[in-house]
Amino acid sequence: MSTSKPRSPLSISIRSTSLNDDWRQQALARQQQLTKPQGSLGLLEELAIQLVSVQQTHQPNVSQARALIFAADHPVARRGTSAFPVEVTAAMVGNFLSGGAASSVLARSHDIPLTVIDMGVDTPYPSPDVSSDRYRKYDFEGGDIYIEAALTPEDFCEVLLVGRQSVARLPEDLNLLILGEMGIGNTTASAAVAGAVIGGEVESLVGRGTGIDDEILRTKTQIVSQAIDRWSKIECPAEDKVAEIMRQLGGREMTAVLGAMLEAVHRGVAILVDGFIISVVALVLVKLYPESRDYLIFSHQSHEAGHQKVLAELDATPLLSLHLRLGEASGALTAYPLLKAACDLHNQMATFEEAAVPNKDDIL
Amino acid sequence: MSTSKPRSPLSISIRSTSLNDDWRQQALARQQQLTKPQGSLGLLEELAIQLVSVQQTHQPNVSQARALIFAADHPVARRGTSAFPVEVTAAMVGNFLSGGAASSVLARSHDIPLTVIDMGVDTPYPSPDVSSDRYRKYDFEGGDIYIEAALTPEDFCEVLLVGRQSVARLPEDLNLLILGEMGIGNTTASAAVAGAVIGGEVESLVGRGTGIDDEILRTKTQIVSQAIDRWSKIECPAEDKVAEIMRQLGGREMTAVLGAMLEAVHRGVAILVDGFIISVVALVLVKLYPESRDYLIFSHQSHEAGHQKVLAELDATPLLSLHLRLGEASGALTAYPLLKAACDLHNQMATFEEAAVPNKDDIL
Repeated sequence: MSTSKPRSPLSISIRSTSLNDDWRQQALARQQQLTKPQGSLGLLEELAIQLVSVQQTHQPNVSQARALIFAADHPVARRGTSAFPVEVTAAMVGNFLSGGAASSVLARSHDIPLTVIDMGVDTPYPSPDVSSDRYRKYDFEGGDIYIEAALTPEDFCEVLLVGRQSVARLPEDLNLLILGEMGIGNTTASAAVAGAVIGGEVESLVGRGTGIDDEILRTKTQIVSQAIDRWSKIECPAEDKVAEIMRQLGGREMTAVLGAMLEAVHRGVAILVDGFIISVVALVLVKLYPESRDYLIFSHQSHEAGHQKVLAELDATPLLSLHLRLGEASGALTAYPLLKAACDLHNQMATFEEAAVPNKDDIL
Repeated sequence: MSTSKPRSPLSISIRSTSLNDDWRQQALARQQQLTKPQGSLGLLEELAIQLVSVQQTHQPNVSQARALIFAADHPVARRGTSAFPVEVTAAMVGNFLSGGAASSVLARSHDIPLTVIDMGVDTPYPSPDVSSDRYRKYDFEGGDIYIEAALTPEDFCEVLLVGRQSVARLPEDLNLLILGEMGIGNTTASAAVAGAVIGGEVESLVGRGTGIDDEILRTKTQIVSQAIDRWSKIECPAEDKVAEIMRQLGGREMTAVLGAMLEAVHRGVAILVDGFIISVVALVLVKLYPESRDYLIFSHQSHEAGHQKVLAELDATPLLSLHLRLGEASGALTAYPLLKAACDLHNQMATFEEAAVPNKDDIL
């Protein structure tokens, strides 16, 4: 795709990391010298090694993390797929900005700047009085995926570009990107995208989202099936298929997140993936660019039904499993201290030699 | 036991919490008003509610946490149950104090004061030049559990008292206690204690500790079986059975941890439990005082074989499962930020009313 459409916002170059690259090998060697039984810090060791490889440094670091939350509405939600009214999308944008949402609290606690980017919230809300580095607004319009594409081809490119630019303008020392979403109805869109990408039974991908009852669940499942069915009849070249799934079945905030991910891996920045919705976008990214998988860290296994299937497709081992199902970057922000711990341990622990601790090998 | 032996160091009073107490109900009511779908913060909600109930405050808080690591040797380790030489216990005490151990790094990162308490490390080491609030040393001697009690009745009482005093002297505003251990051979002692308490197959409780091979694993299993067999022939009154298991099969650092736990619940302070060894001591605590269960938070499911069985016996849902198997409070210190997140979310998130976000109920 990158050769045939050089100016597409989907076109990026990625520095591929590899399981055998020098950075990984050196990070592994250091982990084996630290004063602990080999492997005894489990996934924290793997995290540190991954960050060394992505960041190409002997001192991995996530101190300059940024969080972006993209928000948009989904016209399909008006068909009754959510437990909450669509007006909640707009109200939650206000809540992020005034500091009362879960993600606001966690970002503040971890000292991570949080930016909210309105990609097309359909309910009017008072324009917040915040500086532009914490809030941006775009007026894209969306389609109802039950009957039409979520985005026109032109808007799809524009939304991807906005996502890319949102990351391109972040400071040069950015060393971790946290992505979140807000949009009533977006577990419906995510189930449709995941279903089109993975195939198989739709039921296993459709969950209770914000907490819907059995009746709404049946409606939601039928809508997702119909949307996938609509997409499956669209003819497009094989190499454009994955992007077309996102354009047809995703939404404005999800497409912007894809753009942000593309720019992050292009910049060589690791991405801390949130829950179901962001994982579905990550799945699209990896289908477009398999090398991008190395840049992804999966924060948690959410309680949403389809997440496990999406994580399995990505061969991902999530860090947490706390039955979270809020989204909005809250799972990623909850997992963030584990990345900091992994870095601190890698950088600051003494080696057996430094601490004069007898190693296992000394008695073998 | 508290009535028959009023002066025993095992005797404490505990304020019992309950699933229906007012604090829990009010904390649950607040969680349901916060701007998120009900229950969508999963275990973080349960953590906040537990801390409200233990701390009897509407603003749960873990900012005044302290970490104590108790260290001692296990004569049984000289029979070859560990991958590391017994001298490592002493060397690691030095490493904790000089700041190079995993727990030192994490405690520093979280700004948690860490105290190392030597309850009987058999290898001499240079007396560290640190202030007494970071280090204490006691010269208890231990028995080889393969052939004799780990502690004499007199030393058992004394060691419990030292553990209790270690917590009694912590500041009045203490709001979370983190306990860790260091002692080559203590997964052997822990498997023996757990086996005596729970019963059943010994094999499921004996793991690879610091990373032993199949041959050492067989030796270790045989030693644990023999130690339990020795204990099973000792006659003692039913009400003293659990304490006697600890005296016979535990060790100096494990007994001190039990003392520390007793004092913490007596003070009404929540305990963040580390991995296999500390969980085994927690099991003894709960068998002595079932009400103490409410005060325990289980940080992680370790990779050590017996841990899952011990957690199941305690009906515990661990917060993390990162394949950690280091001990030394490292798992608890890794989980600590999740407790802080739970408190921050409970205290700082906006309610639906405050944020003017339409609630699910508004459309029902």
